[in-house]
Amino acid sequence: MAPPSQCFDATMHGAAHNGAAPAVADAKPQCPTVLDADVFRRQGHQVIDFIAEYYGGMGDHPVHPSVTPGFLRNVLPAEAPSRPEPDAFGSALRDVRDLILPGMTHWQSPRHFAHFPASSSTVGALGEALIAGINVVPFTWAASPAATELEMVVVDWLGKALHLPESLLFAGGGGGTLLGTSCEAILCALVAARDKKLAEIGERRIGDLVVYCSDQTHFAFRKAARIAGILRDHCRAIHTCREDMFALSPTELQAAMQADVDAGLVPLFLCATVGTTQTTAVDPIGKLCTVAASHGVWVHVDAAYAGSALVCPEFRHVIDGVEAVDSFSMNAHKWLLANNDCCAMWVKRPSELIAALGTEQEYILKDAASEGHDVVDYKDWTMTLTRRFRALKMWLVLRCYGVNGLRDHIRSHVRMAEAFEDMVRADERFEVVTDRQFALVCFRLRSPERFGGEKTANELNRGLLEEVNAVGPGPYMSSANVGGVYMLRCAVGSTLTEEYHVADAWKVVQDRASVILRKMEIIYSVLG
Amino acid sequence: MAPPSQCFDATMHGAAHNGAAPAVADAKPQCPTVLDADVFRRQGHQVIDFIAEYYGGMGDHPVHPSVTPGFLRNVLPAEAPSRPEPDAFGSALRDVRDLILPGMTHWQSPRHFAHFPASSSTVGALGEALIAGINVVPFTWAASPAATELEMVVVDWLGKALHLPESLLFAGGGGGTLLGTSCEAILCALVAARDKKLAEIGERRIGDLVVYCSDQTHFAFRKAARIAGILRDHCRAIHTCREDMFALSPTELQAAMQADVDAGLVPLFLCATVGTTQTTAVDPIGKLCTVAASHGVWVHVDAAYAGSALVCPEFRHVIDGVEAVDSFSMNAHKWLLANNDCCAMWVKRPSELIAALGTEQEYILKDAASEGHDVVDYKDWTMTLTRRFRALKMWLVLRCYGVNGLRDHIRSHVRMAEAFEDMVRADERFEVVTDRQFALVCFRLRSPERFGGEKTANELNRGLLEEVNAVGPGPYMSSANVGGVYMLRCAVGSTLTEEYHVADAWKVVQDRASVILRKMEIIYSVLG
Repeated sequence: MAPPSQCFDATMHGAAHNGAAPAVADAKPQCPTVLDADVFRRQGHQVIDFIAEYYGGMGDHPVHPSVTPGFLRNVLPAEAPSRPEPDAFGSALRDVRDLILPGMTHWQSPRHFAHFPASSSTVGALGEALIAGINVVPFTWAASPAATELEMVVVDWLGKALHLPESLLFAGGGGGTLLGTSCEAILCALVAARDKKLAEIGERRIGDLVVYCSDQTHFAFRKAARIAGILRDHCRAIHTCREDMFALSPTELQAAMQADVDAGLVPLFLCATVGTTQTTAVDPIGKLCTVAASHGVWVHVDAAYAGSALVCPEFRHVIDGVEAVDSFSMNAHKWLLANNDCCAMWVKRPSELIAALGTEQEYILKDAASEGHDVVDYKDWTMTLTRRFRALKMWLVLRCYGVNGLRDHIRSHVRMAEAFEDMVRADERFEVVTDRQFALVCFRLRSPERFGGEKTANELNRGLLEEVNAVGPGPYMSSANVGGVYMLRCAVGSTLTEEYHVADAWKVVQDRASVILRKMEIIYSVLG
Repeated sequence: MAPPSQCFDATMHGAAHNGAAPAVADAKPQCPTVLDADVFRRQGHQVIDFIAEYYGGMGDHPVHPSVTPGFLRNVLPAEAPSRPEPDAFGSALRDVRDLILPGMTHWQSPRHFAHFPASSSTVGALGEALIAGINVVPFTWAASPAATELEMVVVDWLGKALHLPESLLFAGGGGGTLLGTSCEAILCALVAARDKKLAEIGERRIGDLVVYCSDQTHFAFRKAARIAGILRDHCRAIHTCREDMFALSPTELQAAMQADVDAGLVPLFLCATVGTTQTTAVDPIGKLCTVAASHGVWVHVDAAYAGSALVCPEFRHVIDGVEAVDSFSMNAHKWLLANNDCCAMWVKRPSELIAALGTEQEYILKDAASEGHDVVDYKDWTMTLTRRFRALKMWLVLRCYGVNGLRDHIRSHVRMAEAFEDMVRADERFEVVTDRQFALVCFRLRSPERFGGEKTANELNRGLLEEVNAVGPGPYMSSANVGGVYMLRCAVGSTLTEEYHVADAWKVVQDRASVILRKMEIIYSVLG
């Protein structure tokens, strides 16, 4: 704890508490320096400068550290200190800078092209700071009315900005909420669908339920299905192919569902994806909904990554037919500047969510203000009671950048990815494996016939990625393996990325490819 | 977006990117002001001052706002702006101050005695700010090595500080993780237990599984059971009574489990609580584990609130026998200064958690650095893939306050609650309903015999709570209803609460009680 000298001034406190002379209790002041406004101000400014310096020097960090497991665990003490050292906060910040940051993967680096982005903005980051400072727990309307109301407003704002149908918004009888992750959203939707179905056919038939996705669907869905008690072999991952750009085929879906019905099973749920993790494939929502409807199946759209692109009208077509879905989710923390975490989920019929996830034990949570009013208690919309005030952050982001600002942000990344794709296509040693749809380019080095052709292509590209990622402060990419084809992924999406980072990244890929091909040339000439 | 004048200096960028002359691409600079270091610095200092002022003026806010549903929704625009207004950030902050804060429940108010605390500290709040600023997604070791390693270190630090047995720590073959909420922790433990059991008896028997808790267990558990596909009538909420301080009886538990076994069902899981939500009842862990073990039942301890008190050796006895449990969770955001959210969960056998929640689709997530090493990939420990770097916050809190500082913090609240309890006992119009165990006092006004005695007591106390909470900038409390007995709850735990706030709160309760009793006196004398 801070030394007594940093204590609140007792007189000030006394004056505040009843507007009169200091109360007697003030004679024995506590020491609540752990939330003292002046201490906060001092430490807070340190933290802001620290983060600003981190952003300013982002270009100097290698994106991915060269460390081995245990590098940090082995140097930290085995126990927390009993008493803090002098200036513990300052010294901890120095350790963050000297010990921790060098062991991080810098997701905000302009050269981070791996996975999907975790896009940051000053407003997103500071929105989180505000949330943490205010620190409320808005599990019911009454537990913090403004937090609930702002969440209702902001999910409608966001839904409109993304061109979602009104039926998913509060304004149209549906409604949304802000969760942490898509995994949560998918699980909540699945449990709502499951309980609705079980109410019709009887709880005991949980073992007959079948869920559907494609072999490209994120494993979050299989995990959610498993958590929700769907039998392990009742999750149908329908095969996709390169000719269809790895999109889920409505014909295949229909066949799978019919086969299950014929076998006496009960089709329950389809998780369709707009922008799959590996190649940003887009499942054809409208046609899939038609198939699903004929079997009474709930359709959820997981647009974790590509949902952000919907802010641009030119991408609206990727969710054609979305009017028919039951629920929809996207991660504003991925590509919409909202910082981790912020997953928006919308449902068409909130009552079904509440029927599955609502709780009755409310007497300690309700108060007179909410009784008799039709208020939203968000604890009944999700699996957790404790919630963070994410709405404040999302509201700040929408308000401070505006819908047009977010469009500019998305479009600049799409343009850069387009440029990268063009560069790949211009070098005939390479191929673009699937046409770019958003800001991800999936590409690979062709393996020359004399080196074994397709047979050695995967190894060649695996080696290429390793070499690319090993280059000093160079780009950092990841890979995908779809239908046996190994490819490199270049996902443009870091807020700090500019055109020259993309051009440089491509140059590194080309250089490393030349070196690898030259090496193979030598090996093959020696081996004859 | 910010005006072009705020753009990064293109030359600076060019120099940073390869240490040489500006690249050609710099001729067309982007405008990444959404993560510009100087913009961040300026807006960041505004936010810090804003929060500091909020803390400084906390005493002036009524804890709970007098607002009706729609008060905020009805005044905000129906859509996000297309383009931000000038100085959008400053103007948004003013709206937070003038529109949003007045509609909040101020959980950090020193007069917030409702629910359980959501304790804040400067370090906890700023830890969140740092996390949001750095903004990484540590789902695997490789995705941010230092984040995973720090999490492993800090759960061991915290576990040791709370006197948990070594078998739950990494140091002893178990291990922990930091999640958002207890709801998640309970669900993860339950799914691990379920899949372990189903692997023995066959997946199809999911409908035979039975789970156990007391009628005091938080509804989070029933929700988790429902999500995990346990049949609705297979959740046994065993009756507790006031004589046992509302603790779960091992004898009753044994009877319930035996009855289920006799009926051909399969006992699966016990959720025991240390510090129940309504009255902070403590279930007898050791004895319950003995019963559970005889039926092969997984025992999880939910110490969401009271877990923080374990930092003080004098409270260690409340988890006597904890060596036998399978998993344990507590919310450091409730009463350990870690700000929302931070739930720590420990398990004895991580492999069982991973067997249930692990995912195979790893080729896009692994990298060479982690292959061949025995690293923790936290995505396999929980239901979500996206995670926040909570370890950084928890590490800062432990480091900057020290274990002794956290003890002082807990003890000061316990002392204040003790003082409140003494004041209640000293006024014979009142009774303490259950003996205080931590920093929650459950009390009620006795209903005089001439006003109907027990029959009217609940109404009387309901009225009392409403009046107490309606007093100007007075205390804010909540209620419980246990075994048909309605009571007021005074939970001391806000970081800013000092002795005089507690004394003042009691004075308000006494005053309102006097007024209510006087009114009833008049009514009864008129009615004869």
